[in-house]
Amino acid sequence: MQLKAVTGTTPEQRLKELGLEMPPVPEAVADYVTHSQIGSIIYTSGMLPWIAGDLKFKGKMGAELTVEQGYQAFQLSALNGLALLRSIVGDLSRIKRIHRLEGTGGATPDFYDMPIALNGASHLINTVFGEKGAHSRMIYSNPSMPLNCATLLVFWAEIEQ
Amino acid sequence: MQLKAVTGTTPEQRLKELGLEMPPVPEAVADYVTHSQIGSIIYTSGMLPWIAGDLKFKGKMGAELTVEQGYQAFQLSALNGLALLRSIVGDLSRIKRIHRLEGTGGATPDFYDMPIALNGASHLINTVFGEKGAHSRMIYSNPSMPLNCATLLVFWAEIEQ
Amino acid sequence: MQLKAVTGTTPEQRLKELGLEMPPVPEAVADYVTHSQIGSIIYTSGMLPWIAGDLKFKGKMGAELTVEQGYQAFQLSALNGLALLRSIVGDLSRIKRIHRLEGTGGATPDFYDMPIALNGASHLINTVFGEKGAHSRMIYSNPSMPLNCATLLVFWAEIEQ
Repeated sequence: MQLKAVTGTTPEQRLKELGLEMPPVPEAVADYVTHSQIGSIIYTSGMLPWIAGDLKFKGKMGAELTVEQGYQAFQLSALNGLALLRSIVGDLSRIKRIHRLEGTGGATPDFYDMPIALNGASHLINTVFGEKGAHSRMIYSNPSMPLNCATLLVFWAEIEQ
Repeated sequence: MQLKAVTGTTPEQRLKELGLEMPPVPEAVADYVTHSQIGSIIYTSGMLPWIAGDLKFKGKMGAELTVEQGYQAFQLSALNGLALLRSIVGDLSRIKRIHRLEGTGGATPDFYDMPIALNGASHLINTVFGEKGAHSRMIYSNPSMPLNCATLLVFWAEIEQ
Repeated sequence: MQLKAVTGTTPEQRLKELGLEMPPVPEAVADYVTHSQIGSIIYTSGMLPWIAGDLKFKGKMGAELTVEQGYQAFQLSALNGLALLRSIVGDLSRIKRIHRLEGTGGATPDFYDMPIALNGASHLINTVFGEKGAHSRMIYSNPSMPLNCATLLVFWAEIEQ
């Protein structure tokens, strides 16, 4: 699982080359807000793998979902995060750095390949942002997920001010 | 599950209107401290649903605990966090913003309603702090919890300096 | 489970007194970087309990691993974090504060002693850094872990600038 090389110079151009689209800006599932900002860093809430509220990946890796499907789910969670960030800053070129991704996936007790699945988000961020996308990350498996979604992804994104 | 509307102008007044009390300031379970501060932000350790060390909610959502009990457990975890924050700043009015809540609950593999349970904390924070309580959040389910507690809650709270 | 008292005045001296060595600087498991820095704070990715890529602790607490083995695993995860931090700052004396540790361990649904296991990291940090090691922490159990490793540990470390 890899993404093709891109030549575009802006995040939006690179997404287009990859044939990927940002979904509508995601909303919160419950009584919270989608992000908070401290200084120049935006911390998102957990991004689900959905399009306009329609969950595209449900279930657990190791059971209903293969690692490839987990990869796709984390990619879609990442696209939701990009849609959210764009709605905040207006243009993804104003993202100065993606510092950190935190990925959580539903998994069975014998699924050990979550790092490969989470690359679905990491490959996208690295490809779209280049050096500005070099991120640390943390990974979690959970026995059950909100709404039985496959993945949740948190961004720590620094913006130009 | 909702909280009633309040009219008080301070966090402490609003808590009183809700009929809720802060428990004694919680202590650490092991060899760590209850919070650390970076700049003007206080990051708490995980707050348990207890009163003076006596755990009020044990077990997992989806098994021993209903979603309603999970809601109450997260509310009590939040009250412990408020007690801790008050002990640090002296008066909850000095909290400038609750930026983020991170909630972790014990759950079975088929429990998908954790966002409703975590509203036990979110409703309280939104009601007590008003606009200053608008928070992002992240949610985790875990197969087993420290001391078999039901919930852990982390605060990122900005204080007036 | 405790560490002996030490008399050395630098972190490196104290590690030596404890009879502990830092392993080679750990590398990322997948397509991310080992840490990111925001201001003077370094946020690490999850540190595994390994030596030069050779996992020393695999499996779950409550099944293949005892709480004592979990303690040793978190200690080794912490030593990897120290090796990484030293590679960044040159000398552990330049660490101004360990603000936070976040520990995640693989566990069965009936394992409630993770706080004791995570003391494997906390005791080490407190002993090596003294007052500068006083840290908040958060703890997670997960049903399955990357590569079936026993533990992952995240550091929030402030450095002298």
